[in-house]
Amino acid sequence: MDTLFLAHPTDDLAVDLTRTGIDPSALDALPWEDVFAAMRDLEAGSVANPDEGRQVGHYWLRAPDHAPTVELGEAIGSTRDAVMAFAEGVRSGATRTPDGSPFTDVLHVGIGGSALGPQLLVDALGTGPLRLSFVDNIDPDGIQRTLDALGDRLDTTLVVGVSKSGGTPETAHGITLVRRALEKRGLHAPGHMVAVTGEGSQLDVQAREEAWLARFAMWDWVGGRTSVTSAVGLLPGALAGLDVRGLLDGAGAMDAWTRAAAWRENPAAMLAGAWHVLGDGRGDRAMVVLPYNDRLLLFSRYLQQLVMESLGKERDLAGRVVHQGIAVYGNKGSTDQHSFVQQLRDGRNDFMAVLVAVLGDGAGPSAPVEDEANAGDFLQGFLLGTRRALSENDRPTITITVPRVDAAVLGGLIALFERAVGFYATLVGINAYHQPGVEAGKKAARHILDLQARVRAALTDVPQPIESLAESTGAEVVELWYVLKRLQHTGRARSERDGWRR
Amino acid sequence: MDTLFLAHPTDDLAVDLTRTGIDPSALDALPWEDVFAAMRDLEAGSVANPDEGRQVGHYWLRAPDHAPTVELGEAIGSTRDAVMAFAEGVRSGATRTPDGSPFTDVLHVGIGGSALGPQLLVDALGTGPLRLSFVDNIDPDGIQRTLDALGDRLDTTLVVGVSKSGGTPETAHGITLVRRALEKRGLHAPGHMVAVTGEGSQLDVQAREEAWLARFAMWDWVGGRTSVTSAVGLLPGALAGLDVRGLLDGAGAMDAWTRAAAWRENPAAMLAGAWHVLGDGRGDRAMVVLPYNDRLLLFSRYLQQLVMESLGKERDLAGRVVHQGIAVYGNKGSTDQHSFVQQLRDGRNDFMAVLVAVLGDGAGPSAPVEDEANAGDFLQGFLLGTRRALSENDRPTITITVPRVDAAVLGGLIALFERAVGFYATLVGINAYHQPGVEAGKKAARHILDLQARVRAALTDVPQPIESLAESTGAEVVELWYVLKRLQHTGRARSERDGWRR
Repeated sequence: MDTLFLAHPTDDLAVDLTRTGIDPSALDALPWEDVFAAMRDLEAGSVANPDEGRQVGHYWLRAPDHAPTVELGEAIGSTRDAVMAFAEGVRSGATRTPDGSPFTDVLHVGIGGSALGPQLLVDALGTGPLRLSFVDNIDPDGIQRTLDALGDRLDTTLVVGVSKSGGTPETAHGITLVRRALEKRGLHAPGHMVAVTGEGSQLDVQAREEAWLARFAMWDWVGGRTSVTSAVGLLPGALAGLDVRGLLDGAGAMDAWTRAAAWRENPAAMLAGAWHVLGDGRGDRAMVVLPYNDRLLLFSRYLQQLVMESLGKERDLAGRVVHQGIAVYGNKGSTDQHSFVQQLRDGRNDFMAVLVAVLGDGAGPSAPVEDEANAGDFLQGFLLGTRRALSENDRPTITITVPRVDAAVLGGLIALFERAVGFYATLVGINAYHQPGVEAGKKAARHILDLQARVRAALTDVPQPIESLAESTGAEVVELWYVLKRLQHTGRARSERDGWRR
Repeated sequence: MDTLFLAHPTDDLAVDLTRTGIDPSALDALPWEDVFAAMRDLEAGSVANPDEGRQVGHYWLRAPDHAPTVELGEAIGSTRDAVMAFAEGVRSGATRTPDGSPFTDVLHVGIGGSALGPQLLVDALGTGPLRLSFVDNIDPDGIQRTLDALGDRLDTTLVVGVSKSGGTPETAHGITLVRRALEKRGLHAPGHMVAVTGEGSQLDVQAREEAWLARFAMWDWVGGRTSVTSAVGLLPGALAGLDVRGLLDGAGAMDAWTRAAAWRENPAAMLAGAWHVLGDGRGDRAMVVLPYNDRLLLFSRYLQQLVMESLGKERDLAGRVVHQGIAVYGNKGSTDQHSFVQQLRDGRNDFMAVLVAVLGDGAGPSAPVEDEANAGDFLQGFLLGTRRALSENDRPTITITVPRVDAAVLGGLIALFERAVGFYATLVGINAYHQPGVEAGKKAARHILDLQARVRAALTDVPQPIESLAESTGAEVVELWYVLKRLQHTGRARSERDGWRR
């Protein structure tokens, strides 16, 4: 139909760059041989994450026979089977609480890649009857609210703690707080708990020693942001009633399609190439993701991590300072048309829109709502209308089409972007699989925790002016203000005319 | 403490620009007299939205005695009282379904400004027992899913339809579909329905003629994106058990503070000034909003509309092409630290972070989780740590502090940004209160609906190649592909070897 339009031969999946204004010769000019070779090496087990000395194996999760060793392939298969069997046991009532009740709820504790994929799956396709809720932060008020919403059902709640390292404070302390809540109700906590973590991690050791209900492995060659087809996503997905086998198959089918070694036949290469050409190889355009489908509301949030944490890097592989990245935002169409499409069409021309079109209507009503047009026809009208309206003002749009939103399609969409991110990383010469900047934030947070402790220790019954406290604790005054104000609001400090006291 | 740090004299609200790298003289240099004068005129009832010939009166909603006429002030007060009385009636069980049952659920139908504010309020502070759900799109699958989740409770569901014009297709057709679902259950729909709409609108007429349970006025001087303190937000807020009086008071108190005619004393002026200096008056930095609090998860989505639809404009007030705007995204801290703070710290330096710090812990647990530090101490550690880590790499952060998240504080935060947006619009010389770009999308959508109708009519029992159909319907081939594929997936077209048939 058009060089810039690629449809899958059988599956009604398509990627459409015809409204990007890209000249195909600009895509031809990209170093595709390097790109495809790097990806082949990665899939074959090269150390594609050199900084951390790690392989990058999320594609093996969908094709254990592609894993670099037979043992690894078997470990993938047996973990997947164990996850599915465990979830089936919980769902069927064969696996029960220590006092013999069937589980009614699942409380998933994890953050970042340990939460975003599970949240996307459950929100898009969860069917019940088990209800899933999430602790994905260390906000005490938020955790309490989640516990309160469970109420008495906490007695029949399965707690899934997910942390690769086992040491992420948000998750470790989240698990602690949930556990205290279980114990406060007189429950035997280990009989409610499951760990998904790296073998030998602090969490793994604890779960083994206390005989938690189950433990599932995370491997160091699966990054958090690409872990949704590992136990991290499969377990909550299966508990929520998703067709996780379909998820794996859909991702695997997309993996197969995106191994095509020619950009014109490879939808992920088309995406990555478009990002590169449109953003001048520097991410000069943000990616605004608008799926026209309520089930995909969290997809942009999922992609935000996948794309930004992978591509937002200070240095390239040669160590040069490059400050790469692509900003990602968006919610869903046509809702966002009534929010920020005003700016997209008329304001700063600093983005590329990625529209996701779903051809069918799921179980939705098909009766007309105006003349012969039904709700889904209107939704399509808004999508294609926005594509046109943006195009008229030279705003580039990429359109991705899927036939429906089910587990296989969702797996395919995720795999499509995983591959595109990998390709783009080679195009700009960066390591897409580490996250060195996160470490700096952790260090700085530790500095603040130390400061909090020094301030608590420095407060006495005698009021001290903030300036003296700053001096005695070695703090910057504004930073100290935050610490003191928090202590005040949590009853651990008092502000008087002469200064601060305990 | 610092010129760039402003705390409220009594309320523990603060705006902190000390980590922006801004020189106060750059703020001094902005034309504040014009800015404050324009806002004074607006509040006094000038036609601040000249394109649409409208006044801009959302500030009057919090201070009816500031309205330009006594009648208007009375209308504001009486509508507010009527909304609260109605909500109280539903909550107490005095107002019931036609068959005499108390209502258990509220289904709010609206899109854009008619949904984002209500969703923010309910998600942040809803207390029950009425459960609120939303139809905020025209996705048939999504609407069906919402109806299925209500199930038998649809019999005791109050439906609130919100549309200023009454003609927004997503909302109008959403109401139709919900209504059909009520009728299918044999319910007398009008006895379940409430309209919030402009007087005399299509929706208003229908609601009056059919004797819906209640009708509440939207005024043309309240824009959708600033309607949360009108009936649009007050009604769902009150139904969800929020302290809407507190919301109004908090917004009103912030309105009072942000009338200070000196930027050093005005937190909204500090925000607007920082946006202007940091983004070079052209929005060169996106605003990444990270409230460190689960209740404020939807705040960035709310601000996305408020900021982007207000500021994303092609032309300034003098008609010059300027392509203004500020992109807004973000979810919550510390969660987003595990998602995209990697890019913020190391990648493209093209944003300003707006951190929202909450001093207290709400009802959350205060027991320590590590040494003497509790969960809230960790959360603060992550916030201040991120502020530091970004600062080290010359990424600007603005920090807004609030004592807690309650209705008054939320009202204050909303009012703070409303005012900042208004100030910024004057700084860059644009109309913040219209949305001309949205019209283009609507027109283009209508074009697609017409095309769909032509294609349905053109299909016969004889297969036609897509190219001939393109010619006979005057369609572009790729656009036609979408239309045909949708018809196929909804059983209204078939694809055969020789082409497309009905």
